[in-house]
Amino acid sequence: MNAPLPPNTDIARSMLRLGQQARTAARALARASTAAKNRALIATGEAIDAARERLATANAKDIAYAQANHQDAAFIDRLKLTPKVIDSMIEGLKQVAELPDPVGEITDMKRRPSSIQVGKMRVPLGVIGIIYESRPNVTIDAAALCLKSGNATVLRGGSEAFHSNLLLAQCVQQGLAAAGLPAHAVQMIETTDRAAVGALIRATEHVDVIIPRGGKSLIERISAEATVPVIKHLDGICHTFIDASADIDMAVTVCDNAKTQRYSPCNAMETLLVHAEIAPRVLPRLAGVYLAKGVELRVCAATRSVLAAAGIHTVKDATEEDWRTEYLAPILSIRTVESLDAAIDHIETYGSHHTDAIITNDHAHAMRFVREVDSASVMINASTRFADGFEFGLGAEIGISTNKLHARGPVGLEGLTSQKWLVLGQGEIRG
Amino acid sequence: MNAPLPPNTDIARSMLRLGQQARTAARALARASTAAKNRALIATGEAIDAARERLATANAKDIAYAQANHQDAAFIDRLKLTPKVIDSMIEGLKQVAELPDPVGEITDMKRRPSSIQVGKMRVPLGVIGIIYESRPNVTIDAAALCLKSGNATVLRGGSEAFHSNLLLAQCVQQGLAAAGLPAHAVQMIETTDRAAVGALIRATEHVDVIIPRGGKSLIERISAEATVPVIKHLDGICHTFIDASADIDMAVTVCDNAKTQRYSPCNAMETLLVHAEIAPRVLPRLAGVYLAKGVELRVCAATRSVLAAAGIHTVKDATEEDWRTEYLAPILSIRTVESLDAAIDHIETYGSHHTDAIITNDHAHAMRFVREVDSASVMINASTRFADGFEFGLGAEIGISTNKLHARGPVGLEGLTSQKWLVLGQGEIRG
Repeated sequence: MNAPLPPNTDIARSMLRLGQQARTAARALARASTAAKNRALIATGEAIDAARERLATANAKDIAYAQANHQDAAFIDRLKLTPKVIDSMIEGLKQVAELPDPVGEITDMKRRPSSIQVGKMRVPLGVIGIIYESRPNVTIDAAALCLKSGNATVLRGGSEAFHSNLLLAQCVQQGLAAAGLPAHAVQMIETTDRAAVGALIRATEHVDVIIPRGGKSLIERISAEATVPVIKHLDGICHTFIDASADIDMAVTVCDNAKTQRYSPCNAMETLLVHAEIAPRVLPRLAGVYLAKGVELRVCAATRSVLAAAGIHTVKDATEEDWRTEYLAPILSIRTVESLDAAIDHIETYGSHHTDAIITNDHAHAMRFVREVDSASVMINASTRFADGFEFGLGAEIGISTNKLHARGPVGLEGLTSQKWLVLGQGEIRG
Repeated sequence: MNAPLPPNTDIARSMLRLGQQARTAARALARASTAAKNRALIATGEAIDAARERLATANAKDIAYAQANHQDAAFIDRLKLTPKVIDSMIEGLKQVAELPDPVGEITDMKRRPSSIQVGKMRVPLGVIGIIYESRPNVTIDAAALCLKSGNATVLRGGSEAFHSNLLLAQCVQQGLAAAGLPAHAVQMIETTDRAAVGALIRATEHVDVIIPRGGKSLIERISAEATVPVIKHLDGICHTFIDASADIDMAVTVCDNAKTQRYSPCNAMETLLVHAEIAPRVLPRLAGVYLAKGVELRVCAATRSVLAAAGIHTVKDATEEDWRTEYLAPILSIRTVESLDAAIDHIETYGSHHTDAIITNDHAHAMRFVREVDSASVMINASTRFADGFEFGLGAEIGISTNKLHARGPVGLEGLTSQKWLVLGQGEIRG
């Protein structure tokens, strides 16, 4: 995936063909009716349901391979297509079929002085490349959202899920066929050669956007090499700032939830900032909650003194590195700050522009926080864990973007479309 | 501008400092009041007005240098800061000051089942890098739009306009100072070393978007090398399709305007497509109009026969290359097609996804055309020349984008902002 691929290799040729097929299919898909796209989604679910036994066999092959390669238990777990995972894929397809079709929406049609009417029409992006790691259910999730939003998809799954992914892609092909949609609307890259990824992320003529789903190193590598635009999600170093005027019960409840409801999601809180004025009243209570749940606390000197004064000593010293770390684990860094400005400074210096919240009763502080913190989601008096496509009402989510351009934060069907300008005239000319 | 810059050179260090200064200034600008931003715009105009004599001297130096380098008359013309150009820069600053401030708009706030309220807040993108060629007025246009939309700007003008640009940037600095805004909100790269551009377009930590303004080769070079997202405009191969049901008078008027009102803009028509059924009635009239205005016609065989039957022989044969060419000149390629599908196929095969129009009275055809032609602006019964920020009601335009992500078509103040998610809670937690 380093240098551009020489144009005459087999992989370059097969990627070119795949890109051309995707572009042609994208045109058909862009004009497909909502009914046909929904039919394809439901029929894909039916095909998956009918393929349960073959899926078990294919998945067992992948798991045996992963075990032989000494992958850890968490890896194997993500790879497993249990009956429950298959049920939820089929259910997911039904849910996507029920979502409103974003394509074709016409908005803001306004009459101009020239007498033309100008507005916007929502259309698919075209061809979307999805590069993901070992979870085979991403094959179905991603294909379903791209299909519903009228886009052709090129999928490149992790080599460890090769057999599972291939069979799932065949189920999608059956679904497309049942709805009379072109088979190339969803294509799987069948080689595990990394050069194929390199070709995909530079195929600006045939691919409109790349969405990588996986670990940070995958996403960094792709961002560095891609010439196709990438909708990406890097770190989720999320903060909550407890302001001096915060309701203490609310602060404890929300900060407990933001950290401990689940540790691994990207929208879990990683750093707690507390205004010095309220720290003696809120920190000992919160530390008690966290320590009781086994959360390791890494604290600044001021926080350490506040906790020590309350008889709490089982904390570690935070290092500079802690403020920049997304733990995704039962570890929380805590810093006591002297002001709202110091809190915002900390977030802008160390944060990842993902999701940040303030707990406050001060209206001016609340407004300054949401205006000045430059993150994809900013919250007043709520848990950072709400930063999620379902919670935000998108119906489904292809991922969370920390980009500023195009889709920011949770990305649903709308994030897979663009708006073009529509002009309705009666023969107007420019003077 | 090829390989990434080694990190220890003087240029790398000065670009890093400039990037950090821009990022800090961007935070101040994002929270600046509309009044302060407007004050800075007006004061910049006043500074330019007061600097007319020094501008003339600086500009004369640039022109002498360009002449010594044997630049052509058109180049010198673009470089010239005449009193009229200066008046229009000052007028432009006033107009941008009068535009509504896009920053802070809150929309779509909806209550979710969890009881949080979720919506969107419009915010500046952050730091915008503008890379442009010899027109010094771009310094002011670009700085004004970025400033009004709350973004910090890093400007890199063409080396031929070096002295003019530097002085104009100083006028902007005076304007910023008069409004109490940070001087680093608008910075000019003062070296003409190309390595500085290479550093700017890869400074993902300090620059949020690059907008190149200039010739195609500049834009292609920047797109190929940039890791910062680029809002770009490549070709403008714009088509008009005269459908079988078109009103002939309207077709003639609109197609005349689309080609001949001005030849050089990117939204001028370059290829005319005509339905075979209407060709004998519309083509001879249109050819007469074009030939009378000195427009060279490059036509397909079917068009040649239609015109020959009407006694018109002064045309050339179009080659495959013609369909892919943006002439920006009094040359038009014409193709007669058998159907709407053939017209759409032609546009999708040869077009540049900029602006395309249909002239028709058939509602179903009109709807298919605007749905299926994948261009930034699609038009029914209007001249492609309307694809313009002012004509579309944006008030001003930083450029036209042929990107699909983020801003598509004419880009105004809104295109220089993004929307983040805003969550208003009362202590809600995720269950």
